[in-house]
Amino acid sequence: MDDKSALETFTRKFAALDGKKILVHGGGKLATALAKKLDVPQQMLEGRRITDGETLDIVTMVYAGLINKQLVARLQAAGVNALGFSGADGNLLRAHKRTGPVDYGFAGDVDLVNADLLSDLLEKEMVPVVCPITHDGSGQLLNTNADTIAAVISGALASRFEVQLVFSFEKPGVLKDAADNSSVITQLKESGYASLKEQKLVFAGMVPKLDNAFAAKRSGVQKVSVGRAIDLDDIIKGQAGTEIIA
Amino acid sequence: MDDKSALETFTRKFAALDGKKILVHGGGKLATALAKKLDVPQQMLEGRRITDGETLDIVTMVYAGLINKQLVARLQAAGVNALGFSGADGNLLRAHKRTGPVDYGFAGDVDLVNADLLSDLLEKEMVPVVCPITHDGSGQLLNTNADTIAAVISGALASRFEVQLVFSFEKPGVLKDAADNSSVITQLKESGYASLKEQKLVFAGMVPKLDNAFAAKRSGVQKVSVGRAIDLDDIIKGQAGTEIIA
Repeated sequence: MDDKSALETFTRKFAALDGKKILVHGGGKLATALAKKLDVPQQMLEGRRITDGETLDIVTMVYAGLINKQLVARLQAAGVNALGFSGADGNLLRAHKRTGPVDYGFAGDVDLVNADLLSDLLEKEMVPVVCPITHDGSGQLLNTNADTIAAVISGALASRFEVQLVFSFEKPGVLKDAADNSSVITQLKESGYASLKEQKLVFAGMVPKLDNAFAAKRSGVQKVSVGRAIDLDDIIKGQAGTEIIA
Repeated sequence: MDDKSALETFTRKFAALDGKKILVHGGGKLATALAKKLDVPQQMLEGRRITDGETLDIVTMVYAGLINKQLVARLQAAGVNALGFSGADGNLLRAHKRTGPVDYGFAGDVDLVNADLLSDLLEKEMVPVVCPITHDGSGQLLNTNADTIAAVISGALASRFEVQLVFSFEKPGVLKDAADNSSVITQLKESGYASLKEQKLVFAGMVPKLDNAFAAKRSGVQKVSVGRAIDLDDIIKGQAGTEIIA
């Protein structure tokens, strides 16, 4: 989201994709930048943002406002009938405030995906563009990890459609050697993932992403891959990225 | 939007309204407050915001993000199947950047309302919640006056539905005496409006609002009223506010 030229390439490739499609986006870097300008200190724990009230307003503004609408406008210009969503819109994603030993503040864990609404929009050739804000059904907005949203939406649609889920990565895929972008592992199983974690070859931010990828695969999503957003077309064709195998 | 108790009352009354409904909201005061925090100077001209690039980001965050999603979540909690929109979403409102002797920056004048999309949502008992951000179809978001959006949407739907348009005012209606809230003019014609303007009985911010109200009436909207948002139910019943007469 913070690299204009990559965003341009991604938009063009996403628009050119055949078939029904959904875009789930994040925007953490821009949220952190706005928080800094507004002097609202941010605290991250294992890649997750601790979301106090002021931070919730910031992420709602950045994710549901700035980024979502810029993406929707760009996609509309590229001929895609995009329609932006938070989880509150049309009750798309119902969540509850996370509880547990660590207080993540207004962080939401998803309970319910409105798959009927998504199916209906997809049948009409509309393209939902989903930001990582959910709601609890009682008027409270919540901050939810974008990769988790992509996983649960894909899981909810896998019984209705043949779903291919692509997670966007900084790297061209899961690498055997973090310093060598040509060392992409073409297919990764749970056992292989466990061994990479032991060897510390997958690091901090990649762990929740890959956890989500395996969770999606286990929930029945037909094909799950990770790779660079700008390689989207090649990942879909199986010519780039890492495929996650059950 | 900036008065929590009034917002609560309004949400409850809006949720209780029978029939198909659309909510168009603004949020100028909150946008101005955020601009101040971010040290982005704001310039207003005849009630309209001059929208430079930084200001466009601010209004997009505040209108399409914070306010729209808070309203949608509140309405969902009140049992209303609300769905938030900017004009880019589903190509709801296509606009062009305003030209003319005054440079308003990224200000949009609406060219096209996607009435088919609105009709389809209304038939499904969904409630569109529209923020005052439009797009030009080429990827550019634009800032558009909320009252104008309410007027053009109502005008576009008036051939399909019997439309009742209520403009939200600070005052309980158009007043004979600005200092006396009990001096509400029950019905106002163009001639009466002209005379109130001559006598300076309608002031700055009310002029564009009333201009929009008369424009909506002229475009065929069946009933147009102005009054306080918290009196919504009584205005709908014709027991509060000022009705605009062609």
